[in-house]
Amino acid sequence: MQLNEPLLAGIKSPQDLQKLSFSELNLLASEIRECIIATVSRNGGHLASNLGVVELTIALHRVFNSPQDKIVWDVGHQCYAHKLITGRYTEFDTLRRLNGLAGFPKSSESPHDSFNTGHASTSISAALGLLAADRIQGGNNRVAAVIGDGALTGGLAYEALSHAGQLGLPLVVILNDNKMSIGPNVGGLSKYLSRLSMKSNYQRFRRNFDNMAKKIPYIGDLFFDMVVRLKRAIKAVFYTDNFFVDLGFEYVGPIGGHAIQQLAEVIRDAGNLGKPVVIHVITRKGKGYGFAENDPGKYHGVSSFLASEGLAEPALSEPGGSLSAFTQVFSEALLKAGQGDGRVAAITAAMEKGTGLNLFKQAFPGRFFDAGIAEAHAVTFAAGLAARGLRPVAAIYSTFMQRAVDGVIHDVCLQNLPVVFALDRSGFVSDDGETHQGLFDISLFRSAPNMAILAPAGKEELEAMLGWSLSNSGPAIIRYPKDVCPAGDPAFLEPVVKGRGVWIRRPGANRRVCVAFTGSLYEQVLDGCQRLAAMGIDVGLYNLRFLKPIDEDYLTGIMDDYELMVFVEEGVKAGGFGEYAAELALRSNCPCRVQVLAVHEKFIPLGKRHELLRLNGLDGEGIAAFVSKALANAYASLAWAEGGK
Amino acid sequence: MQLNEPLLAGIKSPQDLQKLSFSELNLLASEIRECIIATVSRNGGHLASNLGVVELTIALHRVFNSPQDKIVWDVGHQCYAHKLITGRYTEFDTLRRLNGLAGFPKSSESPHDSFNTGHASTSISAALGLLAADRIQGGNNRVAAVIGDGALTGGLAYEALSHAGQLGLPLVVILNDNKMSIGPNVGGLSKYLSRLSMKSNYQRFRRNFDNMAKKIPYIGDLFFDMVVRLKRAIKAVFYTDNFFVDLGFEYVGPIGGHAIQQLAEVIRDAGNLGKPVVIHVITRKGKGYGFAENDPGKYHGVSSFLASEGLAEPALSEPGGSLSAFTQVFSEALLKAGQGDGRVAAITAAMEKGTGLNLFKQAFPGRFFDAGIAEAHAVTFAAGLAARGLRPVAAIYSTFMQRAVDGVIHDVCLQNLPVVFALDRSGFVSDDGETHQGLFDISLFRSAPNMAILAPAGKEELEAMLGWSLSNSGPAIIRYPKDVCPAGDPAFLEPVVKGRGVWIRRPGANRRVCVAFTGSLYEQVLDGCQRLAAMGIDVGLYNLRFLKPIDEDYLTGIMDDYELMVFVEEGVKAGGFGEYAAELALRSNCPCRVQVLAVHEKFIPLGKRHELLRLNGLDGEGIAAFVSKALANAYASLAWAEGGK
Repeated sequence: MQLNEPLLAGIKSPQDLQKLSFSELNLLASEIRECIIATVSRNGGHLASNLGVVELTIALHRVFNSPQDKIVWDVGHQCYAHKLITGRYTEFDTLRRLNGLAGFPKSSESPHDSFNTGHASTSISAALGLLAADRIQGGNNRVAAVIGDGALTGGLAYEALSHAGQLGLPLVVILNDNKMSIGPNVGGLSKYLSRLSMKSNYQRFRRNFDNMAKKIPYIGDLFFDMVVRLKRAIKAVFYTDNFFVDLGFEYVGPIGGHAIQQLAEVIRDAGNLGKPVVIHVITRKGKGYGFAENDPGKYHGVSSFLASEGLAEPALSEPGGSLSAFTQVFSEALLKAGQGDGRVAAITAAMEKGTGLNLFKQAFPGRFFDAGIAEAHAVTFAAGLAARGLRPVAAIYSTFMQRAVDGVIHDVCLQNLPVVFALDRSGFVSDDGETHQGLFDISLFRSAPNMAILAPAGKEELEAMLGWSLSNSGPAIIRYPKDVCPAGDPAFLEPVVKGRGVWIRRPGANRRVCVAFTGSLYEQVLDGCQRLAAMGIDVGLYNLRFLKPIDEDYLTGIMDDYELMVFVEEGVKAGGFGEYAAELALRSNCPCRVQVLAVHEKFIPLGKRHELLRLNGLDGEGIAAFVSKALANAYASLAWAEGGK
Repeated sequence: MQLNEPLLAGIKSPQDLQKLSFSELNLLASEIRECIIATVSRNGGHLASNLGVVELTIALHRVFNSPQDKIVWDVGHQCYAHKLITGRYTEFDTLRRLNGLAGFPKSSESPHDSFNTGHASTSISAALGLLAADRIQGGNNRVAAVIGDGALTGGLAYEALSHAGQLGLPLVVILNDNKMSIGPNVGGLSKYLSRLSMKSNYQRFRRNFDNMAKKIPYIGDLFFDMVVRLKRAIKAVFYTDNFFVDLGFEYVGPIGGHAIQQLAEVIRDAGNLGKPVVIHVITRKGKGYGFAENDPGKYHGVSSFLASEGLAEPALSEPGGSLSAFTQVFSEALLKAGQGDGRVAAITAAMEKGTGLNLFKQAFPGRFFDAGIAEAHAVTFAAGLAARGLRPVAAIYSTFMQRAVDGVIHDVCLQNLPVVFALDRSGFVSDDGETHQGLFDISLFRSAPNMAILAPAGKEELEAMLGWSLSNSGPAIIRYPKDVCPAGDPAFLEPVVKGRGVWIRRPGANRRVCVAFTGSLYEQVLDGCQRLAAMGIDVGLYNLRFLKPIDEDYLTGIMDDYELMVFVEEGVKAGGFGEYAAELALRSNCPCRVQVLAVHEKFIPLGKRHELLRLNGLDGEGIAAFVSKALANAYASLAWAEGGK
């Protein structure tokens, strides 16, 4: 595709926007759109959300003086235009590629990325912190948070609005409202009123009213109460929404989100109010790309496609071939479970399709709940369902479960309630980088009493584990990656026994080495096993299935049979299963050597899952290398020990 | 004290309330108050909050048919009256004693405790789950959540309100508003309007208005917009507050919280609206006990005192004697740090006094922030402060940090921001039971990349660690218990070296056993050491100081010097330091035996810290027993190993 973006090529920093007229800025917006469509169609990425905020981004940078002024992008899946006009145009073709530009704001990438984001609802808290720090240090810089209407359902955003309203600092919160249902209806009066409220009339009116009210002494509580109520009534006429005002903000809007000049004026005026202000902006997701405008949900996050033809059916983002993805296996298994048991309910936190709950929802709408982007509520709500006799299944991405740790411990596990957590996107996650890896779940939830943690290696196992979890008397986590789901291994059909794994491959009579692994690494350990066989090393493969609870006698029984046990784990090493196994081996006087291969303590940047597995030594080659080295060390050590100190 | 509670003695279950007239119920309220004051003055507990809801509790149980109807008490520190009228009067003198009645609702204690609470803001989520499950199962029972105005600052409550508004189920949320400033001002018109809105007039008006609006077709968006705005205006006149209405609730109130009959009528009527409803009730904290009414903050949570004289000064709840509590040491050290460095800021989540930040606040009000009961926001806000160059210290109880795990990982650690977390109430916590133990923090935060975790054993060490953390380039946690802080050990004065501990006691030449421990167990390991010496066992005592990062060469160097290393840890074993040390020993081929003494996987019920340490084998006696047994096993095992298999 031939790109032709002469204006964009000239924007080396946001200051360069000042050189352009508003009509040139409109041309720039078109160029940015073209560039985003071309790049995302090649590299994949967030399309609809980025196309929706092109004008808003230009207007913000036209008014703000970044990086002294700070912009925090909530979630960050709308930062492409921001990246393009803050000096990253020439590298934009590396977007979301290994060692390339991140798809989210990243402070290590540019001083214009003032705060890393990825998870929803953090922007107002972070922006308020940036602003408060600026004022404490005697600064007078501006700070804005740009947050979508979806992210506003997260409680963190509300906590931050409430605190910001109390502090009274001039925080600018831009509510990027892109609900299609709202889009076309607003305009006219709203726009007029919003300008009015910001300019003079309403402000003057309110000042006078306040003065008047203050001047009437001793009329008594009853009258004062009525005055307060009347003020609210008047405010309600001037404002479209009182929610923000209740929390201490000025409210401006809704205003159209695709007229740069008007946006810039409103942002400038609002920034000068000297108070916290919400600017309610209506944008259209997918704006300027017909396919995406017509089906923005489909074009939210996509893999590569042909820009001129739109996404093929089925979406290329799904793992293809004859094998299903784990998500799909779960989706169908849950549907079956719902058919067999009227107590089964399903909960998502705004990820109905991503978690595969759509099948269940279609079949059982009365037992399906979407809690919004509110994982903490989703978990405690599920606890309530379970406490009254249902068998709720909460399907949440591993990385987002980090937002509901206390609900798991304090609400679910403490009462030993039978909530099943389906943790999709566990382990390495393709393309989204540091904020979306599912590597912490084992460590975070292994310490929660009463919890079971299961890791299926394949289709039949995932199905059986869901069944086991739904008949278990307490809570359970089932964790699986976003990848193709293996099927058909006879070991997958062995019944689920609490605390025990299964043999994928038993070694020959001269058994020396056993590799015990978390299910998601099934393909990798099989590959590693073949490589080791080629080196003459015969290993047993033991699929742990349970990461807790553990039948310790059973596991130490296995350990006793081998000279070397290697635990291979798709998760961080600190607090993971391997450390547990090491302590168990020492506690149980197991004579075998125990070694742990897991992810080292660091944040993992973007890449495809298979690339990240390779880079972290968890592909077949890495596993084989680790095992053969551990075996060599074991013998060296043994020789050393025998030789005396 | 002679108790005389004839009415209360006759209440064996809430059904018995039906036998009493409203004037008798008022007498019952007095008896309940007397009983609560007498019991709390002996056993300690939450006083002001419980005295404030006596009438509300009676009214609720008079209308609701518990346990079929469900009541969820937010936080749960107002459940004493509920416990007294649900069959627990005769055991009430065991309140908050080892093996006695819990100070919070506990479903294992009574079917009337429909959902365990302890942490704030969970009640609406849980109640909504209970209600949705009831309806799915074809039930028609009522569910109420009782939540204070403080707990409403938590984002979880907002997430739940938002979801409840969307579902439209007839959830009753009772907003227990006990801010003293609001107390005396409301009445008259409010009460009238609240009754009006619930009864017929307003409902009829609104229905007519809606019908009228629907009948006017094609007037265009502009007019429709105005109609919507007018409706809001009218609503604002009828309602005192629109916040809840915005979220989809009916709103009733504010009404007085100490008139049983009126409360019962409103609760009954509101429950029949067939929609989610917020009943805004104004109560007075400490009601009926002069000392507590005059200073409800002081009487929030108390130790024993003389009921006729009120709390002595200083409050008995503070550890006394010549030694300070850890909290106090931290409080003074932070004040000093603030004096020396204008970048130091302090953040609390509604625990200014409990965390000792009051000194800092008095000295530097501009650098002090109270985020409300909103730990997640507090953490991300602190990250924002740090990103702009401040050195924020967030002081949060260990158990409440569970609510901000994602903020720590995603907002603080990912950007390696220098936020210091002062985790008060780490380890075993006296009197509050399962929900308030600080036993998970090591496991939860050990997996967070870039984080440092420090555990001071005494005063000088805590001071030095705060200094180290404030000059560190990344985030740090300092964890300490709610207990007396040892001082004066020369080892405390040794400089803090990243990743390394210090020797409290080096053993003699014939070194065999080393006990490495987390700081909070200093007194206990010293005691254990003496007991072991009496058995002829000479042990070294190594204070770990750092739980991460670890100078691994240094630690394995120590391990190499001993035959047996015992890691003793005040925290859960799963994911704790001991498991890390075990894996390190195996990875490093350390010849010594490593054993771990930590808290086993279970929830720890109430007791004093010293009782809980003893019950979990972490007092001096338990530590000595564990070490001597491990030493015996080590030799048995050695003999066994030498004898061949």
